[in-house]
Amino acid sequence: MHAIKVVALAGGVGAARFLRGLVGVVDPCHVTAIVNTGDDFVHHGLHISPDLDTVTYTLAGLVNEKNGWGIAGDTNACLEMLGRLGQETWFWLGDRDIAVHLARTRLLGEGLPLSSITDRIRRALGVRARILPMTDAPFATVIETPEGALPFQDYFVRRGCRDPIHAIHFRGAGVARPAPGVLEAIDLAEAIVLCPSNPFVSIAPILAVPGIREAIERAPAPVAAVSPIVGGKALKGPADRMLRDLGHATTAVGVARLYEKLVDVFVLDTQDAALAPEVERLGMRCAAIDTIMSLPQRARDLARDVLGLLRR
Amino acid sequence: MHAIKVVALAGGVGAARFLRGLVGVVDPCHVTAIVNTGDDFVHHGLHISPDLDTVTYTLAGLVNEKNGWGIAGDTNACLEMLGRLGQETWFWLGDRDIAVHLARTRLLGEGLPLSSITDRIRRALGVRARILPMTDAPFATVIETPEGALPFQDYFVRRGCRDPIHAIHFRGAGVARPAPGVLEAIDLAEAIVLCPSNPFVSIAPILAVPGIREAIERAPAPVAAVSPIVGGKALKGPADRMLRDLGHATTAVGVARLYEKLVDVFVLDTQDAALAPEVERLGMRCAAIDTIMSLPQRARDLARDVLGLLRR
Repeated sequence: MHAIKVVALAGGVGAARFLRGLVGVVDPCHVTAIVNTGDDFVHHGLHISPDLDTVTYTLAGLVNEKNGWGIAGDTNACLEMLGRLGQETWFWLGDRDIAVHLARTRLLGEGLPLSSITDRIRRALGVRARILPMTDAPFATVIETPEGALPFQDYFVRRGCRDPIHAIHFRGAGVARPAPGVLEAIDLAEAIVLCPSNPFVSIAPILAVPGIREAIERAPAPVAAVSPIVGGKALKGPADRMLRDLGHATTAVGVARLYEKLVDVFVLDTQDAALAPEVERLGMRCAAIDTIMSLPQRARDLARDVLGLLRR
Repeated sequence: MHAIKVVALAGGVGAARFLRGLVGVVDPCHVTAIVNTGDDFVHHGLHISPDLDTVTYTLAGLVNEKNGWGIAGDTNACLEMLGRLGQETWFWLGDRDIAVHLARTRLLGEGLPLSSITDRIRRALGVRARILPMTDAPFATVIETPEGALPFQDYFVRRGCRDPIHAIHFRGAGVARPAPGVLEAIDLAEAIVLCPSNPFVSIAPILAVPGIREAIERAPAPVAAVSPIVGGKALKGPADRMLRDLGHATTAVGVARLYEKLVDVFVLDTQDAALAPEVERLGMRCAAIDTIMSLPQRARDLARDVLGLLRR
């Protein structure tokens, strides 16, 4: 069990699986996840934070393993009834899930910041690693498409990622401030990891909060990134289509370029080992590791290997 | 099947059962329920209207027959999770129930009046009788006890009706206005029924909305009331304790006195037939009928008998 302090920038499913591996090889008390909130939205009056929930449920041992998100064994009686009442049902709401959304929404309404609420929820669910939203401020990822500017969940869930992408904007990024604890965690970190998450809509929003990118750049800790693209395809979600639509190479190299000047070590999958020299020409070390976290043991191995690379 | 227009003032379970009987003997399109909203409250950020829900679920054929409220077969996964998150769980929230609360809360937040929302919900659930909240305005029944002034659900559910009662107040009654359709329905009614509901916290709040009592007093239709007290006991809830604590006789006569000058026909249970002369001395006709609606057929018989008495 490593005793080093690790900060991980996290999106949803891929990040959550990596984090679960990480807390298997590092004392969870030394792990801080800084989580994307650009996907957050209000639906049926509920403040929903999909990435915070996915990370929390996964670290709490509650996650639905098949989906990678939601709570295992959760039911959808409420959602069915919403449908019967003529309400929208395109976004899955598990009955247990709704309890988390209700608590978050009510506490936000009482004036508590999202970071305090997130901390309360993770403690109530027995999670020892620290989970921080990137910001307590309103922040929304907006996808520019031929259909117009779509709120992220409209693009992602309601329309199933089917729209070509012209651009991605972060509404609120100009005035957002890092949530309490974010900059301090980065300053004190001994290792920083950009999880295998979508670079455009999971990692970029975090880096777009004024101060976070700068803190990582000046932090003494080495920085690693794990590619979410394997064999030219995203393991989950639309990262490959986004790379293509936005004019980047649809490969791990395309991702590595996005992280130029930020990352010291780039980890790509063994399938993409041949791309390593091209990544190294960007001025970062590159290692090929089995990054497909099909089993929890694989995630632990990956986390251990990434930390090992950062210590070298 | 009677074709007369009936208006019924309704609280929760007893009223809902009577209304279900009523729509069995009168064309439901001619039935308007004016429902108490003094019990409404906000809990976990949800706007909950217990009496509207009980009436709606019962007329929709969805009600949990054993409790008389809630949805048959509803689960409580969300409530359990709320408990795990350290949130309050003293008020039952079924998962399907929550869908109704979510829809209501969201639509209220969008500026729709409660009456429109209630109408939408009952239509979505296939209810043909009209269900009107007594008012669209904020209105709260408050119970004065030795522990201080308790919001109704705190007295009723959280503390289980265990506190002695000094007084009952209706907050908001001064400025509330009847919901759209309420006064018109009363004016056009051919029969008006005060359902077998708690006179203090179900019927009195409705009558306390400025204009409703006056409309009933001047309406051409005859008015009947069905006693919720049988053999000196409330069939459900704390009506008997309220009568006692507030200095009234704990009998059907105590209820009849509260309805003096408003009611033409008072219906008490056959068990209380001996009290009929005392009720008649109050200046109303009195009939003894089997009022215990143990089965739906009994509720239909009771509704038919009450209408028969009003036509005489």
